[in-house]
Amino acid sequence: MDYQNIFLEIPKELEQIADKGNVASYIPELSNINPDKFGIHLTTIDNRNYSLGDSDEKFSIQSISKVLSLCLAFKLEKDELWSRVGVEPSGSPFNSLVQLEYEKGIPRNPFINAGALVICDVLVSRLSHPKRDFLEFLRRISGIENISYSPRVAASEKSTGYRNLALISLMKEFGNIENNIETVLDLYFNLCSIEMSCKELSKTFLFLADYGVHPLTKERVVSVSKSKRINAIMQLCGFYDEAGEFSFKVGLPGKSGVGGGIVAIHPGQYSIAVWSPKLNEKGNSYKGMKILEFLTTRTRSSIF
Amino acid sequence: MDYQNIFLEIPKELEQIADKGNVASYIPELSNINPDKFGIHLTTIDNRNYSLGDSDEKFSIQSISKVLSLCLAFKLEKDELWSRVGVEPSGSPFNSLVQLEYEKGIPRNPFINAGALVICDVLVSRLSHPKRDFLEFLRRISGIENISYSPRVAASEKSTGYRNLALISLMKEFGNIENNIETVLDLYFNLCSIEMSCKELSKTFLFLADYGVHPLTKERVVSVSKSKRINAIMQLCGFYDEAGEFSFKVGLPGKSGVGGGIVAIHPGQYSIAVWSPKLNEKGNSYKGMKILEFLTTRTRSSIF
Amino acid sequence: MDYQNIFLEIPKELEQIADKGNVASYIPELSNINPDKFGIHLTTIDNRNYSLGDSDEKFSIQSISKVLSLCLAFKLEKDELWSRVGVEPSGSPFNSLVQLEYEKGIPRNPFINAGALVICDVLVSRLSHPKRDFLEFLRRISGIENISYSPRVAASEKSTGYRNLALISLMKEFGNIENNIETVLDLYFNLCSIEMSCKELSKTFLFLADYGVHPLTKERVVSVSKSKRINAIMQLCGFYDEAGEFSFKVGLPGKSGVGGGIVAIHPGQYSIAVWSPKLNEKGNSYKGMKILEFLTTRTRSSIF
Amino acid sequence: MDYQNIFLEIPKELEQIADKGNVASYIPELSNINPDKFGIHLTTIDNRNYSLGDSDEKFSIQSISKVLSLCLAFKLEKDELWSRVGVEPSGSPFNSLVQLEYEKGIPRNPFINAGALVICDVLVSRLSHPKRDFLEFLRRISGIENISYSPRVAASEKSTGYRNLALISLMKEFGNIENNIETVLDLYFNLCSIEMSCKELSKTFLFLADYGVHPLTKERVVSVSKSKRINAIMQLCGFYDEAGEFSFKVGLPGKSGVGGGIVAIHPGQYSIAVWSPKLNEKGNSYKGMKILEFLTTRTRSSIF
Repeated sequence: MDYQNIFLEIPKELEQIADKGNVASYIPELSNINPDKFGIHLTTIDNRNYSLGDSDEKFSIQSISKVLSLCLAFKLEKDELWSRVGVEPSGSPFNSLVQLEYEKGIPRNPFINAGALVICDVLVSRLSHPKRDFLEFLRRISGIENISYSPRVAASEKSTGYRNLALISLMKEFGNIENNIETVLDLYFNLCSIEMSCKELSKTFLFLADYGVHPLTKERVVSVSKSKRINAIMQLCGFYDEAGEFSFKVGLPGKSGVGGGIVAIHPGQYSIAVWSPKLNEKGNSYKGMKILEFLTTRTRSSIF
Repeated sequence: MDYQNIFLEIPKELEQIADKGNVASYIPELSNINPDKFGIHLTTIDNRNYSLGDSDEKFSIQSISKVLSLCLAFKLEKDELWSRVGVEPSGSPFNSLVQLEYEKGIPRNPFINAGALVICDVLVSRLSHPKRDFLEFLRRISGIENISYSPRVAASEKSTGYRNLALISLMKEFGNIENNIETVLDLYFNLCSIEMSCKELSKTFLFLADYGVHPLTKERVVSVSKSKRINAIMQLCGFYDEAGEFSFKVGLPGKSGVGGGIVAIHPGQYSIAVWSPKLNEKGNSYKGMKILEFLTTRTRSSIF
Repeated sequence: MDYQNIFLEIPKELEQIADKGNVASYIPELSNINPDKFGIHLTTIDNRNYSLGDSDEKFSIQSISKVLSLCLAFKLEKDELWSRVGVEPSGSPFNSLVQLEYEKGIPRNPFINAGALVICDVLVSRLSHPKRDFLEFLRRISGIENISYSPRVAASEKSTGYRNLALISLMKEFGNIENNIETVLDLYFNLCSIEMSCKELSKTFLFLADYGVHPLTKERVVSVSKSKRINAIMQLCGFYDEAGEFSFKVGLPGKSGVGGGIVAIHPGQYSIAVWSPKLNEKGNSYKGMKILEFLTTRTRSSIF
Repeated sequence: MDYQNIFLEIPKELEQIADKGNVASYIPELSNINPDKFGIHLTTIDNRNYSLGDSDEKFSIQSISKVLSLCLAFKLEKDELWSRVGVEPSGSPFNSLVQLEYEKGIPRNPFINAGALVICDVLVSRLSHPKRDFLEFLRRISGIENISYSPRVAASEKSTGYRNLALISLMKEFGNIENNIETVLDLYFNLCSIEMSCKELSKTFLFLADYGVHPLTKERVVSVSKSKRINAIMQLCGFYDEAGEFSFKVGLPGKSGVGGGIVAIHPGQYSIAVWSPKLNEKGNSYKGMKILEFLTTRTRSSIF
């Protein structure tokens, strides 16, 4: 597939996309970002690379890290994991607490906040030094050394994270959190604070495009079956209550973060990361979704 | 791909699957089915065919028809359609009325009952003779002449369909039903009553595996883009609150019916239909799901 | 208690109440009412009468009739009734369908629409000629001959009553409606259409102020215990999700209707009816509530 | 009213009440109570006293304290209070978090946990030394010196109170909690831990039977209007989702606690406290409710 020519069309396409959306504003570290940043990077499984704009600039990956923590927890916990968290889409965002209460503390999937908190609880139980060990895992599978947490972002998230405190308290009440609430939240907020560039994200996620083996490092990160399942969960749950819209228009498994980043996977072909800080009303990057829609339409490369 | 050898393994695999589940019992026409029936038929886009068991026996396709009515309504109404019905997964089944009320009469997607009723309302508005015209559409795209409604099943559904009456009344209240309630329900119950065999279903749905063109009749049923979007909706919403489970384990867009049938699509490769009347607790064919999981695992042919 | 002097203060009090609210508009028969109508009538159990304004003009009593149908159904069905309908407040209005679904077709109380439909179903089962028999009951207990249904209002309600159709269909699905849906709805819409004046309402409801015996006709309408229980249900459920507000400010058991009427009971002392067509945002008479608040404050006659 | 003779009938009545229900078990301090304890004490506003059984034994009053904290907060905050907490019944218990989320952190009423937490937040804002000052208020209005907190019960509540942590976190997220979460919870758990006997409760609450003035100390605790309003809230919200049942059968404003205590008020006549530790499935004293029903039936003293 000639991605090069299509990448050349992106600047013109960008001009035609309305300059809509709002940068996340709940913490200063996110609200101070230049809203006009735009980066994109695609890596094929045979290591061809296409990029544009601010693709080498690090940004706060936020919820995109939930895919990586799921990978590690799934490796460690195997199918036991699914007794504590589901694989079903969650419906509307306001449902988080509602469903959690009806479903007795079992979150719908690992990508809503409640589910990601359970994943963090698994990591706290399984790892000797959760924060350090997770960073090592991430550096190893990506082959990138200078990935790290942003303590300032993590601290900011913590000071405003009362909804997350509500979620984890409710799950603790239902017996679905094993460890101390503070410890689990600390890991959670740190995972949200990880900073990576589009290029780094694209390369890091490549193992999910190659059935669990990272084509550059040759490391088997997860089994074929786990790779497919993680992609399936991304397809159904990666965009909160806009998962259908993203499947419908982009047609790839993907995951977004409120920092404005999106990662998407075309199994057997490539992984791609895009970054544009302005979010649509559902909290997903406005331009990021538009450009990915343009790309899969032009390349006819959706999985459907 | 050598599907033949894998089909030869199915009987042994079936022996190892527990004989669980219950035949749908809300109308006699469904409850009187022999619960041991089992059929499967796979058709590739280059017209290779693989089948087993009762694959030529007609059964009540029930909600599988919702995909076909969506195809026709989407052709007729184009993107206007999405102002009246969403493309997002619905969450739990009990939510049907709940979400409909919160979301002011706009169903979450075209495959929950409420959404399929809106689709029927579109067809009633757009077609001169809705029941006759739909059947003609279905016969034409499938190239199969003897597909028809079961008046007895339709009548039975009608006499017990108080929940559907509740759904359509609520949508009428919100102004999302244009036509007479009785007329729309009549079309809906008839669509549910269509009887087809696995072989017929597999052949009929082939256009969704070939980007909108039926490879046997060469008719373009829907555009490339519509074909991909219908598959995306199936992936996210085809199994009610077990959509995640089906994606996770089978990894193909698909749609089930309470008659025990399931259709699944591998874009670019094949369509497959399986039938086994006993349903799991979520209302999807117990053995059907298990065999499809076996098949995509053995053929490594999930889309993820 | 010198009600006369307090009634003399009402006109001045009315001048100080903002002219807020909107007349019910969902059927022409209600929307065409002169919004400035105001009537009030208080009858003590020793038959002293105080009235003001349009207290002799008949208006559509709407949901106020739900108290009277409950009285008759409770007489006929005794405590069996409470297996089919609860006595608890319902919370928010939008909950009607939601709670009905969670609570498997058992309405929270007899004054929300769903509950009143169950009461109508009881009357249809128990009475030979439900519409005629109910009217006879009503004429007998009130001693007023010219009370009747408004066929035009009933027909209008029916033609727009899709939410009520949704409610009764859902209950039928759950097995909590014995009779034909059309028959029950017909009785329901007729009960809503009854027309009475403030004076007639005040006199009719007097038996609930005198422990079940009507002090004028000396007829025992319901037992002491039933009288107290009906008052208790009015106190907790008579104003939908404004029951707390009415208890808090007026402090009497009461029931409102969207025609702008309110009836309230002071056990052991009096019954009172007020009418002003403009409704607040919760659907209760704006001025009616204000004047009752003024009256119980001035007379210090709340039950608390 | 000859309460003496009716009290003499209580022992025989108790024999006829099934020995049902379960002692609260979530903290050892409550579960270790002798389940056969039974006490009752009635005080008239002219200071006649009737008692029976363990009426002088202190027990954990739990949620009954929510009425007293409301009284103090209402005095301090006046009608400003109602912008932060409602006066409507809450519906089902499972709704607590659900409604709080829909209604953006405004609890339905001051007697559900969320509402009582807001009341505590008001007291923390208004009082110099909240725990000490509240106890002083309580001792002064009751004229009883040896009322105090149970530090052991308060500590136990705190260690299991994850649902309360979830509730207060969610309200903090919505901006409806001004103070530090830990401080507010500490006051809340201490209020729950107060220990009083039936006699003490009956005497303390007497001001709500006498329109806000305590007939023994002659102190005006709250205004006439506030007294009536607090009684109204008790009537509608004092028994969670059994408020209707209690109104229906007992017919007095009242408040229960999971320690097995119930206080009820007959305005203008008396206050009464009963204690029996076994709770029905809704969390209210099984025998307590039965005996109060017997008493108001025999004395014909319900407010309805």
